[in-house]
Amino acid sequence: MSDSPPNRVDLSRFDPGNYNPGRPFLIRSLWFLVNALFLQNPLNPSSSLKVRLLRLFGAKIGRGAVLKPSINVKSPWFLTLGDNCWIGERAWLDNLVPITLGNNVCISQGVYLCTGNHDWSDPTFGYKLGEILVEDGAWVCAGALVLPGVVVADHSIVAGGAVLTRSTLPYRVYAGNPAVEIRQRNMKSDAAPVA
Amino acid sequence: MSDSPPNRVDLSRFDPGNYNPGRPFLIRSLWFLVNALFLQNPLNPSSSLKVRLLRLFGAKIGRGAVLKPSINVKSPWFLTLGDNCWIGERAWLDNLVPITLGNNVCISQGVYLCTGNHDWSDPTFGYKLGEILVEDGAWVCAGALVLPGVVVADHSIVAGGAVLTRSTLPYRVYAGNPAVEIRQRNMKSDAAPVA
Amino acid sequence: MSDSPPNRVDLSRFDPGNYNPGRPFLIRSLWFLVNALFLQNPLNPSSSLKVRLLRLFGAKIGRGAVLKPSINVKSPWFLTLGDNCWIGERAWLDNLVPITLGNNVCISQGVYLCTGNHDWSDPTFGYKLGEILVEDGAWVCAGALVLPGVVVADHSIVAGGAVLTRSTLPYRVYAGNPAVEIRQRNMKSDAAPVA
Repeated sequence: MSDSPPNRVDLSRFDPGNYNPGRPFLIRSLWFLVNALFLQNPLNPSSSLKVRLLRLFGAKIGRGAVLKPSINVKSPWFLTLGDNCWIGERAWLDNLVPITLGNNVCISQGVYLCTGNHDWSDPTFGYKLGEILVEDGAWVCAGALVLPGVVVADHSIVAGGAVLTRSTLPYRVYAGNPAVEIRQRNMKSDAAPVA
Repeated sequence: MSDSPPNRVDLSRFDPGNYNPGRPFLIRSLWFLVNALFLQNPLNPSSSLKVRLLRLFGAKIGRGAVLKPSINVKSPWFLTLGDNCWIGERAWLDNLVPITLGNNVCISQGVYLCTGNHDWSDPTFGYKLGEILVEDGAWVCAGALVLPGVVVADHSIVAGGAVLTRSTLPYRVYAGNPAVEIRQRNMKSDAAPVA
Repeated sequence: MSDSPPNRVDLSRFDPGNYNPGRPFLIRSLWFLVNALFLQNPLNPSSSLKVRLLRLFGAKIGRGAVLKPSINVKSPWFLTLGDNCWIGERAWLDNLVPITLGNNVCISQGVYLCTGNHDWSDPTFGYKLGEILVEDGAWVCAGALVLPGVVVADHSIVAGGAVLTRSTLPYRVYAGNPAVEIRQRNMKSDAAPVA
């Protein structure tokens, strides 16, 4: 409404700008209800029901998905899961823009994948959104937080409770807040049998 | 009941002391129900209904408040919000003592504002509570935790997943666990047009 | 199903191996419902009802337990609480294997005790579980995360929002992510009266 003085935020002037939520209001409202009743609901153990509902609203989900109770998905039409993906209890996929998981990705309990940010230098607090990509075989461990625009690279690991602010390198393990690389992820099959 | 040996905590001897919860038991019990049914409930998208209920129980809330679903407020009679404040999905305002937000404050998704602490040197584990003040234009980003007694100063920012144990300085950005200052918050309007 | 290539995870080949969930499927399903309806439910303030239900499903709980609303317990038959234990609002005891609390233990709001892990070097992502023991007088503060296999030693403290990856020493305070020792916990009764 009013002009804000220089250097001061005025949230009443917030404008989502050219943000496209991906579906009309009616569909988003319907999903809001379905998400609360069937995904966030701790009483629904059925993985297959959740997969069907997500697909009905536009999600692309491969074979073998395991979706635990009390998960929270903002926009199924912005969700892509490869084959054999696991979403742990109370994981939150807050996809204002696309979240994409490759094959054999594990998103553990209590993880928060956050795609929403604001331009903090902007007095009108404009959106600054960032897609999240989690590549094949990667694992985001329990309680971790992944920030907007990050790529969790092939077979990399985000340790429990880590806050991941930058993209990872393949086959590396990241821990801490902010998360830093702490080691290689060496697979058992790396070890050639000794003759 | 029994005397605890030296250096040992005995939680059966806990005594809230002179803590004043601010309202009689009946009102607190009513709010407990209203909070669960209308604020914590993921099915209630209405910001204005939440504002009305909070005000009915004593909260002071300015114009333009945006209150998302699944928020959790302990004591509305200890809550003050200026104009244009945003409370994100699953934010938790655990105000055993007052929490005060200035104008144009954004408390993002999953933030936990914690006012409750205990005296760890006390064998009876007595309360050690601390009010939280978030000043104008400040932003507590998603998943952050703010500890008792902290002032989030004018236009400062607590980054995503940060654990803020101390008060901040104005127009600075804090990140990590424990959170430390990482940079200035420079606003676009800082840049004077070049002639 | 298919052989995974070397160095690649295939979650379709996951096998819980010799993991024993402790109760037959029917009992686990019943508990799933009871947990959602009476423990996770923010509308149930009754500590004693929760204690009775947990005991009915095999938990060992001493005197004086205080169990707040919205807590989440995976397997009551793997839960032992000494006397005067407190479990704060939204605490999550995710005990695929035993979680044991001593006497006078405080698990604060929003804490996550995580016993489940996977062998990241294993292409079939086998379980790697670890019991959690919290000894007498210890305090896990709000929002902290305790990882599998950890012992929170006698009267030690895990600070708010800390991520505890290793066992602690008695009467020490740990903070940060990963948590490190930051100080002694000196009790008031340490101070001998001056003659």
